[in-house]
Amino acid sequence: MSEWFETREGLFGQAVQRLSRGVADRRAPARHPTMATVNAAGLPEVRTVVLRAFDREAMTLDVHTDLRSTKMDGLAVKPNAAFHVWDAGGHLQMRLATSVAVLSSEQADDLWARVPDPSRQAYGVTPPPGSKIETALDYTKTPDPATFAVLRCRVESLDLLHLGTDHRRAVFERVTDWAGHWVSP
Amino acid sequence: MSEWFETREGLFGQAVQRLSRGVADRRAPARHPTMATVNAAGLPEVRTVVLRAFDREAMTLDVHTDLRSTKMDGLAVKPNAAFHVWDAGGHLQMRLATSVAVLSSEQADDLWARVPDPSRQAYGVTPPPGSKIETALDYTKTPDPATFAVLRCRVESLDLLHLGTDHRRAVFERVTDWAGHWVSP
Repeated sequence: MSEWFETREGLFGQAVQRLSRGVADRRAPARHPTMATVNAAGLPEVRTVVLRAFDREAMTLDVHTDLRSTKMDGLAVKPNAAFHVWDAGGHLQMRLATSVAVLSSEQADDLWARVPDPSRQAYGVTPPPGSKIETALDYTKTPDPATFAVLRCRVESLDLLHLGTDHRRAVFERVTDWAGHWVSP
Repeated sequence: MSEWFETREGLFGQAVQRLSRGVADRRAPARHPTMATVNAAGLPEVRTVVLRAFDREAMTLDVHTDLRSTKMDGLAVKPNAAFHVWDAGGHLQMRLATSVAVLSSEQADDLWARVPDPSRQAYGVTPPPGSKIETALDYTKTPDPATFAVLRCRVESLDLLHLGTDHRRAVFERVTDWAGHWVSP
């Protein structure tokens, strides 16, 4: 009986399962990936996001954002994002390369209707996120669906690194239907 | 008596202290930042790194790398990196924008001499990191100072977000000597 991290199928299966858990379980490591983008000046940026959905068939994940956040300026120029999750329990680093689409306002409206009220507070801050303010609390939160956007991130590749007595690393790509291959760690 | 997160000085001081702790304490959150770069194709990439040094006067941080890792190709084109630390105990997200210099081989030699043996195993894998291999363990580790590099990352700005009953966010920049200003979260 081999351990899950000894086969490519095992690694891929665990990654998919742990991403799914990130949507269902607020305390799962995949609940809060870091998301890296290239900003409008061409420089890397990275921040914590909340994993709102993961479709294991389509291999897409959803993140919600304020339309006026600075990451949107970057995505307008370079519609790609890299995601990172460190799952300490699994000794597993997951790195996802994705291409990003902003859902239409109709699609976002449907999703907005299902956003619970406390989470809505995150969309509609005045002034917009990142604006200079005089004192720390010189802002107001007024939930506003007009500033809410859904980023649907299509996974193009998945780079998995398991840290054990021996390290194992495999890369899985959409173009080869996730067959995967081992790489030197 | 105000809480540390209520003033810009307090926020900045805590960030510096928590970064320092990341070097000294293997279990501190800042021990393992995520580091985002732009790869040679212009796409964002992100991975876990180990914080090896932090100079609070110069506001630089050091990361060690294998010279043949794919992040080096990206840094050759775009010598910038963004770092991210989520410090759960402090409810503090730290985001650092940096410009990256590769230390000379003489400087790296001095530092290599101080790298403990177990850590040396991370430099000198054959084939180079990211190379396709047939089976998971088709690689060997032979510590090799010729593949060891030190990235000295000069902090240009620090974006701090404290999540509390009210969120507080401040940005500090080198060009204004870290005076800092509040921004909308």
